[in-house]
Amino acid sequence: MAKKLPEPGSSSPKDNSLLTRPYRIGIIGASGYTGLELIRLISSHPHLEICYLTSESKAGEKARICFPFLPSSVDLVFQRLDLEKAVQTADIFFLATPNGLALKLVPYLRSLGKRVIDLSADYRFNDLGLYQRIYGQEHHDIEVAREAVYGLTELNRSSICSTLLVANPGCYATSLILGLAPILNAGLNEVNRPIIADAKSGLSGAGRKAEYTYLFTECDQNLKPYNIGIHRHTPEVEAVLAKTTGQIISLLFCPQIVPLRRGILSNLYIPLAQPDLSFEYIYALYENFYRGEPFIQLASPGSIPCLKEVYLSNYCRLGLVLDQRTKTLIVISVLDNLLKGAAGQALQNCNLMLGLDERCGLPMTVPFP
Amino acid sequence: MAKKLPEPGSSSPKDNSLLTRPYRIGIIGASGYTGLELIRLISSHPHLEICYLTSESKAGEKARICFPFLPSSVDLVFQRLDLEKAVQTADIFFLATPNGLALKLVPYLRSLGKRVIDLSADYRFNDLGLYQRIYGQEHHDIEVAREAVYGLTELNRSSICSTLLVANPGCYATSLILGLAPILNAGLNEVNRPIIADAKSGLSGAGRKAEYTYLFTECDQNLKPYNIGIHRHTPEVEAVLAKTTGQIISLLFCPQIVPLRRGILSNLYIPLAQPDLSFEYIYALYENFYRGEPFIQLASPGSIPCLKEVYLSNYCRLGLVLDQRTKTLIVISVLDNLLKGAAGQALQNCNLMLGLDERCGLPMTVPFP
Amino acid sequence: MAKKLPEPGSSSPKDNSLLTRPYRIGIIGASGYTGLELIRLISSHPHLEICYLTSESKAGEKARICFPFLPSSVDLVFQRLDLEKAVQTADIFFLATPNGLALKLVPYLRSLGKRVIDLSADYRFNDLGLYQRIYGQEHHDIEVAREAVYGLTELNRSSICSTLLVANPGCYATSLILGLAPILNAGLNEVNRPIIADAKSGLSGAGRKAEYTYLFTECDQNLKPYNIGIHRHTPEVEAVLAKTTGQIISLLFCPQIVPLRRGILSNLYIPLAQPDLSFEYIYALYENFYRGEPFIQLASPGSIPCLKEVYLSNYCRLGLVLDQRTKTLIVISVLDNLLKGAAGQALQNCNLMLGLDERCGLPMTVPFP
Amino acid sequence: MAKKLPEPGSSSPKDNSLLTRPYRIGIIGASGYTGLELIRLISSHPHLEICYLTSESKAGEKARICFPFLPSSVDLVFQRLDLEKAVQTADIFFLATPNGLALKLVPYLRSLGKRVIDLSADYRFNDLGLYQRIYGQEHHDIEVAREAVYGLTELNRSSICSTLLVANPGCYATSLILGLAPILNAGLNEVNRPIIADAKSGLSGAGRKAEYTYLFTECDQNLKPYNIGIHRHTPEVEAVLAKTTGQIISLLFCPQIVPLRRGILSNLYIPLAQPDLSFEYIYALYENFYRGEPFIQLASPGSIPCLKEVYLSNYCRLGLVLDQRTKTLIVISVLDNLLKGAAGQALQNCNLMLGLDERCGLPMTVPFP
Repeated sequence: MAKKLPEPGSSSPKDNSLLTRPYRIGIIGASGYTGLELIRLISSHPHLEICYLTSESKAGEKARICFPFLPSSVDLVFQRLDLEKAVQTADIFFLATPNGLALKLVPYLRSLGKRVIDLSADYRFNDLGLYQRIYGQEHHDIEVAREAVYGLTELNRSSICSTLLVANPGCYATSLILGLAPILNAGLNEVNRPIIADAKSGLSGAGRKAEYTYLFTECDQNLKPYNIGIHRHTPEVEAVLAKTTGQIISLLFCPQIVPLRRGILSNLYIPLAQPDLSFEYIYALYENFYRGEPFIQLASPGSIPCLKEVYLSNYCRLGLVLDQRTKTLIVISVLDNLLKGAAGQALQNCNLMLGLDERCGLPMTVPFP
Repeated sequence: MAKKLPEPGSSSPKDNSLLTRPYRIGIIGASGYTGLELIRLISSHPHLEICYLTSESKAGEKARICFPFLPSSVDLVFQRLDLEKAVQTADIFFLATPNGLALKLVPYLRSLGKRVIDLSADYRFNDLGLYQRIYGQEHHDIEVAREAVYGLTELNRSSICSTLLVANPGCYATSLILGLAPILNAGLNEVNRPIIADAKSGLSGAGRKAEYTYLFTECDQNLKPYNIGIHRHTPEVEAVLAKTTGQIISLLFCPQIVPLRRGILSNLYIPLAQPDLSFEYIYALYENFYRGEPFIQLASPGSIPCLKEVYLSNYCRLGLVLDQRTKTLIVISVLDNLLKGAAGQALQNCNLMLGLDERCGLPMTVPFP
Repeated sequence: MAKKLPEPGSSSPKDNSLLTRPYRIGIIGASGYTGLELIRLISSHPHLEICYLTSESKAGEKARICFPFLPSSVDLVFQRLDLEKAVQTADIFFLATPNGLALKLVPYLRSLGKRVIDLSADYRFNDLGLYQRIYGQEHHDIEVAREAVYGLTELNRSSICSTLLVANPGCYATSLILGLAPILNAGLNEVNRPIIADAKSGLSGAGRKAEYTYLFTECDQNLKPYNIGIHRHTPEVEAVLAKTTGQIISLLFCPQIVPLRRGILSNLYIPLAQPDLSFEYIYALYENFYRGEPFIQLASPGSIPCLKEVYLSNYCRLGLVLDQRTKTLIVISVLDNLLKGAAGQALQNCNLMLGLDERCGLPMTVPFP
Repeated sequence: MAKKLPEPGSSSPKDNSLLTRPYRIGIIGASGYTGLELIRLISSHPHLEICYLTSESKAGEKARICFPFLPSSVDLVFQRLDLEKAVQTADIFFLATPNGLALKLVPYLRSLGKRVIDLSADYRFNDLGLYQRIYGQEHHDIEVAREAVYGLTELNRSSICSTLLVANPGCYATSLILGLAPILNAGLNEVNRPIIADAKSGLSGAGRKAEYTYLFTECDQNLKPYNIGIHRHTPEVEAVLAKTTGQIISLLFCPQIVPLRRGILSNLYIPLAQPDLSFEYIYALYENFYRGEPFIQLASPGSIPCLKEVYLSNYCRLGLVLDQRTKTLIVISVLDNLLKGAAGQALQNCNLMLGLDERCGLPMTVPFP
């Protein structure tokens, strides 16, 4: 009944006109914010069908009773995770699970040929020792880890097209890497000085957790930096940029919670190595780096992006300011943490893995106000 | 070049497979919140193409420079309204203009056979004298006024299908009428007592106006009732319900501003004439009234809708509570004021006027959180 | 060491100039929103000193470590409740505890002559059977219950002055009763028809609870009615108004959560018995009823109060609208739920019990914006 | 009738017990957010009396009609500014006026011996040429300018005590200078590298302006950097720090608007000159620098301040993080922009000018939530 999966990495675009049956999708951890966003997106995707939803806290309940805003087409009951049942019911799995769980699920899913997009941190690191130090989880499965492609689409598109296992990036990491890659790739940063990333995130970035810290009463009319210099996305960003651009950077990352539901705005302060770079030169460099990218927007020269410009879309929008006085390039990077920062990019990657148009099922308009 | 418009009211669904060229759309008053929402919706509509945008305050500026979040496909400059140019450039017009202006535009547009969806109040009233008293505008054009169909889709679908001029309802009015119509239609309300409508609206309901009242600083952490008993939607609601259900009601309407960008939640308190109606009976009555409606949702018995459940969608969601102690039916009605309350319903009506699926181009999922 | 408590009900104002030692205060349940607000107010009260704080969840921790915004003068550790220790350390107790607990504490505290202001529901009802039905708690201690005075200051001032046990009202109840008392007291409402109270409350009204419902992500951009017709403050309001005004009313109460931290705005719809009452007559009636009250404000005729006008103050502000069409008086009642709706009124009552100026220690200005 | 002003700079504390009549206060520009905050604070100050309020936009209207939340004691009508009348009615003037206006008023006020606290930028600069370049205003009155003391209380207390003209700092400037002064004063920053200040401000920081940018609809769910590297407070901060600490720094300042009414949170990234400074050393340095300061709070080691901890108070709270990896000291500085950032510090300075306790009339508690 289920459609046979296309060969990964087939060089030409797959012929979508032959699609008669949609791909069967399973979402593991479907009742968190990322899981719910995956449900929303996939429910209106023309070639995907949600067949299996798990939620440990809501197991046995109908999804639309728990979350009445879900589309009526989602007529499923949340399951307690049962791998046997999972692999019978679906062929492509999105894992929106706490760190450490994917390590236990992915080897089995891969052994049966299932495609996996893992949204946790478990397969983001080539250096398993680094992962172990950061996340405190044993991780020795080198073989599966080697198969994983880091799902920052714009940097790794061709590898994503041909893999069966994507390690989807963190939301802060996506915001930072997209803003930093072009200038680092050109080798224009001053390597002996740190890059500072001052990032502000809406509350959904913390996941759906019933904790005092995330109450309306405590977040409204508040701003709250945390984990300054020690956030776990720091080594993720440094490792990915080292691999992609060849630059070993020292990143000082300061995340903070701001009173909005969605969105990340990152200000990236990059000391420049050469004193006399022109704004036009740097701007052209970013333009060229992201030319043709459907989900990267470059704000016009002189204009600074604001978060609203990408709200509820899969775009990452970048703005550039060159401060000649301090020889610093400031990149402003905005995205919706649940879309380009999580579920949206996961679907973008899934589309690529299936040979579909990568924009398929992704919102291309931004509501205002 | 432009597609020939189909005959209005042709009895069978139009054959969409033949559509090769989209309908040419003009939006008059395109830089307000409703106008911008129309741009967003229509820009991803498969059978419509935006060809003409006017804005008196932004005339001469590129739409995407003024509003960088607009889709890249919207490559137009805001024009100062020029009727000659308008009628050459577009065939269907959405008027998102201040009250009183449509009176001057519609006769000309209609004289050339253009289709019009007027989102102002100008053609909402059969009784032109009533319109004049409320809005203080002269209005004598009985002929054109007679042609206008009140665009509350669920009540007037067949007339909308066959008209060339729709008077799109106000946002509060849509919220109230959809909640009240079934019970009034059944004649179950106590006619000698008023119906109370306590409605809360987000700020976009006021339009895009640079006034102190609408500043973030003044609206955040505030709730503000206004125009109690004298809001202009009161006679609109009474007149429409009288015409549609035959019930002459006395409505006490209390609108208020609450700190959110979008959405209306109305609590409707309806005194019941009969003491012994069961909840099940009333619930079935609402179910039957709206059976098959794609954009009306009835919350399951015992559940009360909240605004989030319809945010950014074209749905109106209704919840019912029967208070036996006070013989009162409470209907909770929630919708997004810019969608079902304005641009969404306008597009729903436009779809019907063109013989298209009325859901075409309208968002069917609700983002969360 | 502690000051000897003055005799309750002594007819003349106490001579404050003799005060050399402040009264020793204990707050039971000090780490919730009401408890924290009591700490804030009392910490700058010239005649009260906080000596004892309990919190089951924070026992053993320094208050200023848990809540760094507390004034530096509050140099106390949260205790697990120990009645022996409590009565040695303090003479006046504020109970900001879950319903049912005061029943177990108050008899002992009163047996030792301690003054008590109970902010829970336990002593609000003269009819103990009614309390039992609503709150599901056994309650047979008629003697102590008889001693309790309902702490709606403006209605019961003289009794409060002479009692040792105050049952402080609920926040919704305060908002509703203050708005309804004058018109009911005058017997001008139509008794055969229900009074409708449509009330909106900020999130602190729910207490400090780590639940999904109260997360920023779920409350922002949302409005959420709940417990329509069945909220537990309904019988409290009906009973108090019956006792105070002699009017047996039928109240339909619809509470709802709105996205703000503090504040209640209630719209009260009162059907009038006489068709020809003038606005001036009713306005004068409210003016006379509350003449000289330091914490009741009457909006000027034609003006409608908004929540911001009382934010962070102990005021209740009332606005009046007479809708002649439907013979309905609409009273808009706004207050800060943690001040006049809880801690503020509790302190107002405490001041009266001690013969102090009732405004002592209460904020008399409103920050803007 | 008015109290004779004390001699400035009298070395011993003034004897407040002799105060029988309050000082007469005039507020020029009283209907903006800073002006209104001044009214609120001064209205409950024991030794000051508001005698004169001007507002060009509200001239002729009663203050309490325009702003019903003002305390009932403020029974004044807004005047159009009339210097003759001003100097007859008041002895101390707060100027909450647009930049450029104080230049025209202060010479006259000073010539009559009036005390002035100017909250605009007009007298903040010793280098009048710098002022002219930044603000585009002619400014040649060297004599009066020389008299002005920059009102950053903690840095200039003794001069403030003895002056008759205070130039009150900007809100961003206060936030930055208080966070930077101790480390710069110790000469521990790396002078060849820029200091980066990433600051987030609530909307009241922009003043009370009816502009699209500040509408609720445009600010809610948004974050918006602006004027990166070119904000006018940059030279103010650099000049003050140069004068006070002797350090010539290069500041890269990035301000941004966040969706809250009040408050500034600044993250200050300071490159350190010496590789081996310990956190304890730096913490002690800050402790010593601000020892005994009533309005400076140092978060305990390991704890990061959040904005809520100073909301509606006159405190500035500082938190320190030492990132050894990048040899960067991060100072987090939070304050309420209308209090310590404007009206609060102005009153603090006024208290000092009059020989009063500098805390007089300033809120010392923080409401929560």
